[in-house]
Amino acid sequence: MSVNFEVLFQVSYGLYIVTSEYEGSINGCLINTLCQVNSEPPTFQVILNKLNLTHDYIAKSGRFGVTILSQDAPFEFLGRFGFRSGRQMPKIDDTITILRSPEGIPIVKNHGLSYLTCEVFKTVDVDTHTTFIGKLLSAEALAEGSPLTYAYYRKVKKGKTSKNAPTYISPEKTTKSIQEATMAKYVCNVCGYIYDPAVGDPDGGVAPGTAFESLPDNWVCPVCGVGKDQFSKM
Amino acid sequence: MSVNFEVLFQVSYGLYIVTSEYEGSINGCLINTLCQVNSEPPTFQVILNKLNLTHDYIAKSGRFGVTILSQDAPFEFLGRFGFRSGRQMPKIDDTITILRSPEGIPIVKNHGLSYLTCEVFKTVDVDTHTTFIGKLLSAEALAEGSPLTYAYYRKVKKGKTSKNAPTYISPEKTTKSIQEATMAKYVCNVCGYIYDPAVGDPDGGVAPGTAFESLPDNWVCPVCGVGKDQFSKM
Repeated sequence: MSVNFEVLFQVSYGLYIVTSEYEGSINGCLINTLCQVNSEPPTFQVILNKLNLTHDYIAKSGRFGVTILSQDAPFEFLGRFGFRSGRQMPKIDDTITILRSPEGIPIVKNHGLSYLTCEVFKTVDVDTHTTFIGKLLSAEALAEGSPLTYAYYRKVKKGKTSKNAPTYISPEKTTKSIQEATMAKYVCNVCGYIYDPAVGDPDGGVAPGTAFESLPDNWVCPVCGVGKDQFSKM
Repeated sequence: MSVNFEVLFQVSYGLYIVTSEYEGSINGCLINTLCQVNSEPPTFQVILNKLNLTHDYIAKSGRFGVTILSQDAPFEFLGRFGFRSGRQMPKIDDTITILRSPEGIPIVKNHGLSYLTCEVFKTVDVDTHTTFIGKLLSAEALAEGSPLTYAYYRKVKKGKTSKNAPTYISPEKTTKSIQEATMAKYVCNVCGYIYDPAVGDPDGGVAPGTAFESLPDNWVCPVCGVGKDQFSKM
């Protein structure tokens, strides 16, 4: 196998929150794998890692909702749905607004441009992941803005990829990551976020040029929320 | 079903050429349905309309290649692979450069940033379309540039969607198309391209402000190449 892993980052995706409900409990997770399958009638698929709680809720309920996110969605919000598991903590707390589609499917409203909902009619087992293919039930706009893409998340927001995502690539496989490792940055052991002193953490009030060692003790990873003790020097 | 079809345009996709070879014949078509499924080992899927010749070649050969296109790919090139069928005319002529991956899978080099190749291990029948899921065999860079996205194709290039694509939406379903119909534009009956006198056809040497009736008789649709007689007043 002759693979240049940098090529895989040139595949284009959006970023979405997929939600589902089972026995009164709602969960959601960040995905990049929404894709239309048929046009008439319209059908869509999502691909989820079997480790995700939302995977189990969709498998059991046969229904899912998808929020198409705005570029303005902040890191903390994306990290909540992308790097924390609903098996360990409830993701839907009082900071998250849940809408109901006409069919009663829960949707995350925060930072959403629009949503769509589907009823699953086919499930495909693909090793670590499952593809859920569903008939489109409803689609509505929520707000004005530009859709968040994976490319924007990686290039502009400097976001990282969950180990549960199909697109996860371990850092040692990419040349750039090896080069970055010579510049004394720190990597989050939980989510892979890299603290770069040259960039700082503007969302967290940390100016560019701040060394990792100079961060306040209560500083947390802007993506997944863990403390400084969960970071390793690169 | 309560569906705002404008929402479906907010789903993000890239644009690619998928190629396959069967009994010495190579065909390719434009798709937006490339998606990574697993990360370890890496697997990818493509979704093709059963009407496409490339669909049959992949089904029979069990292998496919994907060219990740550059934003600079011109309309004529995209139209050749997106709106003409290999069942009616060979798409691969002497203007198209075919590369071979290390495994011998044919790849379209023109306007490609990179390519990847896969060997199919699962096929999923989804009504009008088939999903081919394949193990990644190779991936290599070809040129510098930015990947062509479906959003860029629609917004910047004003491109239309093939009736065979999962994302095709008939014009009467979108409000914008109804509004445009009051402005005396002309639509191509074959591919859906809309000639707008306010825009002209800069790639074809037609200045903005040129009425459809004033176009030269040898003018052809910049997307699919048919003549003026295949256009209808909107």
